[in-house]
Parts: sequence; C-alpha cells; structure tokens
Amino acid sequence: MIGRLNHVGIATPSIDKAVAVYRDLLGATKIGEKFALPAQGVWVCFVDTPNSQIELIEPYGEDSPIHGFLKKNPAGGQHHVCFEVPDIIAARDDMRAKGATVLGTGEPRIGAHGTPVIFIHPKDMGGVLVELMETPKDAH
Amino acid sequence: MIGRLNHVGIATPSIDKAVAVYRDLLGATKIGEKFALPAQGVWVCFVDTPNSQIELIEPYGEDSPIHGFLKKNPAGGQHHVCFEVPDIIAARDDMRAKGATVLGTGEPRIGAHGTPVIFIHPKDMGGVLVELMETPKDAH
Repeated sequence: MIGRLNHVGIATPSIDKAVAVYRDLLGATKIGEKFALPAQGVWVCFVDTPNSQIELIEPYGEDSPIHGFLKKNPAGGQHHVCFEVPDIIAARDDMRAKGATVLGTGEPRIGAHGTPVIFIHPKDMGGVLVELMETPKDAH
Repeated sequence: MIGRLNHVGIATPSIDKAVAVYRDLLGATKIGEKFALPAQGVWVCFVDTPNSQIELIEPYGEDSPIHGFLKKNPAGGQHHVCFEVPDIIAARDDMRAKGATVLGTGEPRIGAHGTPVIFIHPKDMGGVLVELMETPKDAH
C-alpha cells in the first residue's frame, strides 16, 4: 500500500533556527518559505533533498499538538514519518480493518501539500507516528 | 552538501515485529533480510519505499548504543536520519570546521550499505541524530 517516503516531520521550537542548521551546516539549497497551517496548529517549512523532504514544524497557537512533543524534547526532534498512498479513504478503511487506530475523527484533513492526510497512532506503528498522505495528482 | 535522504533509522525491540507492521499493516513489499552489524551493535533490516528506505535497527549485544534509546522509548521510535554525501572525509572536516560535534573518534565507520558513515551530535542538529553516509559508487 505505502508508496514514496514523502517526508520526515521534524518538530522544532524555531523554524528559523532549524533552517539555519539545514542551510548553513548541512548545505541544503532548496528550502521553501515558512507558512501557517492553522487547522493543524503548525508553521511548516520544507527542506528538499533530491528524493524526499524534511518537513520542519513549529507550534502555531496555544492548542498546537506539538507543544507536548517539545515539552519532552525541548531542542526538537523527529516527530513523524509520512508515506504516500494512492487513495486516502481506502487507506483509512484498510488501516481500521486491520485494527490500527486512526487519530482524530478519522476524517482526512488537508495536509501541507494540499492533499488529504490521516495519522496512525504510534502504538500500532512500532512507536512511530505515521502520516499517510494522498499522492498529489500532478506529482512525480 | 547533503544529497539524498538515504533512510530513516527506526529503533525497535524486535525487527521481526516491526517487519510485520510494515508488511502486514502498511503493505510494504520490498523488505530485505535481517543482518548483524556487530561493530555498530545493531541488527539491521531495510524496508524499501520507491524513493528511500526505512532502516529498522534492533540491539545487538550488551553494549548496543540503542539500549538507552529503547529504555526511553520501549515501543521503539525514530532514531536517526541519514543523508548521503559525496565524500565522507570532506563532510566530516566541514562539519568540524563549522563547529558541529562528530560522534566517536570521528573516524568514519562502515555503515549498513557498506560505505563509510559518521554521526553528528543531535545538539547541533535541532535535536535530531544525523548520519552522513558516503554515496555508494554504484548507486542511483
């Protein structure tokens, strides 16, 4: 079912400081503009590698779901892994049929790439928060 | 400097159980054989996606460096991110020149893909343990 590793989500207290690490220390050259996803409670910035992306996420607002993560990991750290799937509803139903817990209501939300996404509970995924994202129709 | 996102390293108390998650729940179809890297203190198993890989790692021996990680994260979790670089010695010297801490002696070791690797301390990388791996000469 899963396709490309679309991105690794990395939580940070400061996207500006994290961008400096990827640009100045690691020499990344393709770094997008920071933008807000208020419905998800995050600021987002993508750092491109030739085959995939790092998604830097910073809390947006008091209710951001990553405040808890940053409380445990004040310097930031790996937050989730995102795999592409061809059909998000089919993926959700498949996950549920296999007994995995889809977070929230299970209704897909629009993710940072403009396509619907769901998240699967880490308890079912070897301790890893897994995002499934419908492949953009015009991608690749 | 950094090139491809070669893999995401995911620590697990049991590669066999983690493989079942990727194969049976997520539907991954290209999963390698488990093998030992005694010098690194890990068992390794690669799960391929079309563009990258998940590297499952399980402790090998009493001195495995991931026992501590699993003590904090008993179910497993995202352990490191590995980027390819064209020349490991140049990458190491560049990291040091920029003030980043290379783990261990700084002498590259042979990693799971048979090419030299180094690890950069998370304190310099936004809380993320970063592996730099020399691109295999016959790759891509």
